[in-house]
Amino acid sequence: MTERKGNLMDVRDDIKVLDATIRDGGLCNNFAFTDEFVTELYKMNVRSGIDYMEFGYRASRNMFKESDFGKWKFCKEEDIRAIVGDNPSDMKIAVMADVGRCDYKTDFLPKSESVIDMVRVACYIHQIPTAIEMIEHFSSLGYETTCNIMAISQASTDQVEQALKMLAESSVDVIYLVDSYGSLYPENACELAKVYLAAVEGTNKKIGFHAHNNQNLAFANTIETMSYGVSYLDATVQGMGRGAGNCAMELLRGFLKNPKYNLYTLLRFIEKYMIPLKEEGVVWGYDLQYMFTGLMNRHPREAIEFTSKGRSDYSEFYKALLDNE
Amino acid sequence: MTERKGNLMDVRDDIKVLDATIRDGGLCNNFAFTDEFVTELYKMNVRSGIDYMEFGYRASRNMFKESDFGKWKFCKEEDIRAIVGDNPSDMKIAVMADVGRCDYKTDFLPKSESVIDMVRVACYIHQIPTAIEMIEHFSSLGYETTCNIMAISQASTDQVEQALKMLAESSVDVIYLVDSYGSLYPENACELAKVYLAAVEGTNKKIGFHAHNNQNLAFANTIETMSYGVSYLDATVQGMGRGAGNCAMELLRGFLKNPKYNLYTLLRFIEKYMIPLKEEGVVWGYDLQYMFTGLMNRHPREAIEFTSKGRSDYSEFYKALLDNE
Repeated sequence: MTERKGNLMDVRDDIKVLDATIRDGGLCNNFAFTDEFVTELYKMNVRSGIDYMEFGYRASRNMFKESDFGKWKFCKEEDIRAIVGDNPSDMKIAVMADVGRCDYKTDFLPKSESVIDMVRVACYIHQIPTAIEMIEHFSSLGYETTCNIMAISQASTDQVEQALKMLAESSVDVIYLVDSYGSLYPENACELAKVYLAAVEGTNKKIGFHAHNNQNLAFANTIETMSYGVSYLDATVQGMGRGAGNCAMELLRGFLKNPKYNLYTLLRFIEKYMIPLKEEGVVWGYDLQYMFTGLMNRHPREAIEFTSKGRSDYSEFYKALLDNE
Repeated sequence: MTERKGNLMDVRDDIKVLDATIRDGGLCNNFAFTDEFVTELYKMNVRSGIDYMEFGYRASRNMFKESDFGKWKFCKEEDIRAIVGDNPSDMKIAVMADVGRCDYKTDFLPKSESVIDMVRVACYIHQIPTAIEMIEHFSSLGYETTCNIMAISQASTDQVEQALKMLAESSVDVIYLVDSYGSLYPENACELAKVYLAAVEGTNKKIGFHAHNNQNLAFANTIETMSYGVSYLDATVQGMGRGAGNCAMELLRGFLKNPKYNLYTLLRFIEKYMIPLKEEGVVWGYDLQYMFTGLMNRHPREAIEFTSKGRSDYSEFYKALLDNE
C-alpha cells in the first residue's frame, strides 16, 4: 500500500484548490448568476488564496441557444473579462470544455490573447481519444489542460488503465478522478487514486479529485484521496452543484493548514450571497434520493427529477429505482 | 499499518449495529418522543436486523426532576416494557448510564429480572476508575457492558493508553471510541481505532465507534474505522442527535452488505415519523456553526445556542469563537 503523503499538521505546497461554484453550481440554476455574485465570488476567491476559479462551460453556441441559459454556460471571453479585467491576481481562470458539446477548434483564442489559463476537458472514458485531441489543441494554444474522466465508478479496471496510459503520453497537465455519481467510498476512492498516481509517476503530471456528495462523502473522499498524493482539489461554496452537490469549500478550507486559505472571507460571502440564493429556491445538497442513486452507482437524473417535483415518498422512489436497475 | 479487514463486498459477521436514535436524538427534543414513535422505531429496528437499540439514559431521579424531561431520560423498567413487552426478538436493549449522573447502585435490577441486555457507561477519560467500578457492578448483575469514552479528541496519547490498559483488564465487553466533538478526520480516527484494537488483541473485547457529524464526516469515519476492525457501530435515524447529529442509519444500512439490514422499512419510518418531527421544529444536523466547533475541537454548546437562537451571522460567530479559543 502506498503511504500517506504528509500528515494532518502539514502544509503541502503541491495542493491546488479549484473553486467550481459557477460551473457545477450553474447546473442548479441554469447558470443564472448575477454579475455581482460572480464578481464578489471572484474577489473573495482571490482574497482567500484559491488557486483556480472555474467560470463555467464554453459550450457550443451552435448546439445550445444562448437565450436558454445564463452566460456561464458559454463563458465568452468578453463576459469573463467584464468580471476580472485582465485578472491582475495570482489566481488562475479555468473553463470547462465538454467532449461533444464544444466547438473547440473555433471557439478558443491563443492563450496569449485570452484571460483564461486552464481548459478542463470533461469526457466519459470511451471518449478519451477525442479528449486527447482537444487537449493537444488547447495545449498547442498555450493553455494548461486537465482531463476530467467522469463517472469513473462505472469504468472497468482495464478501461481506466488504458485511458491513463494514453493520457500519460499526452500533453495533459492534470488528470481528474471524477466521482460523478457520488458512489465511491473512501476505501475505493483511495485505491483508484493510487492507480492514477502510479500512472503519472515520473512525469510532471498531477492528479485531481472531483467529488459528489450523494452519500455525504464528498469532503471525506477529497481529503482521503489527497492524503495519498492527489493534489488538485475541486470544491464549491456550500457544496453547490448538481444534485447532491460537491465537496464544500468551507469544509476543505477548514481542513487545509495553509494559512492563505482564509475561512472568514468565505463566511462573509456565504451570508451575503449563498443564503439569499437558497431563499430564492435554488436547491442542492445531500438527501435520501441522491443516496439511493449513489448507492446504485447510477446517474442522479431521476433523483433530480424527484427533488424538482418536491416529492418526499422516498420509499416508493427507492422501490421504483430497484425495479429498473 | 494494520491492514483493512474484509473488503467492500464482504459481510462481516462481527459487525453489530446499534440504533441510538432515542438516546442521542433525545438530546434534541428533551426525550419527548411519543410512545407511538418509540414503538414503531422498535418494531422497525427488529424487522430490519438491527442488533441493539438504545432507549435512552437511566439518569438519577435524585439529580434530575422527572417532570422536566421525557421518560427516556430515565428509562424506567416499566416504561421500556410498555414498549417491548418481554422483547421477544433477537434485538438487544441497551440503556446509557453516565458517570456521575446515575444512581447505579440502586437503580438497576439483576439482568435476570430486567428486559435490558446492555448497559453503556459513558465517561470522560479522567473518570475511567469510576466507570470501571460501574462496569464491574453491571457485569456482576449479568449485563453486557460498554465503556464509551467521550471527547476522545481532547485526550492525550498517554491518557488513552492508560485508560485502555485499565479497561482491557476489566469485565467490559465493548470499548467505544466516541468523537463527541466531531473533530476527527478519517485519518486520525483510524489511527486511534488501531490503538484501541491493539489494546484488546487477544481478548474477547470488541471496539465500537460513535460519531458526530460536525464536519460532515460521521458516516465516513464510521465506515473507515470499521474497515480496520471496529465492529460496534452507532447510528441514528437521519443522524438525529445532539448538534450536528450522528452517523445516519440510512447511509450505514446502504453501505453494509448483510442483507438483514433492510433499508426499505427504514425509509417508511422516516416518511411517517421523522419528517413530521422535523416539521414540528426539532432541529439537528450539519451546519457551519458545528463545523467551527468541530474544527476547533471543542464542545458544541455555543453552536447549539447559536442554532436555537436562529442566528445566521456565521462570520461573527466564528470570530467570537476564535476570540475565546
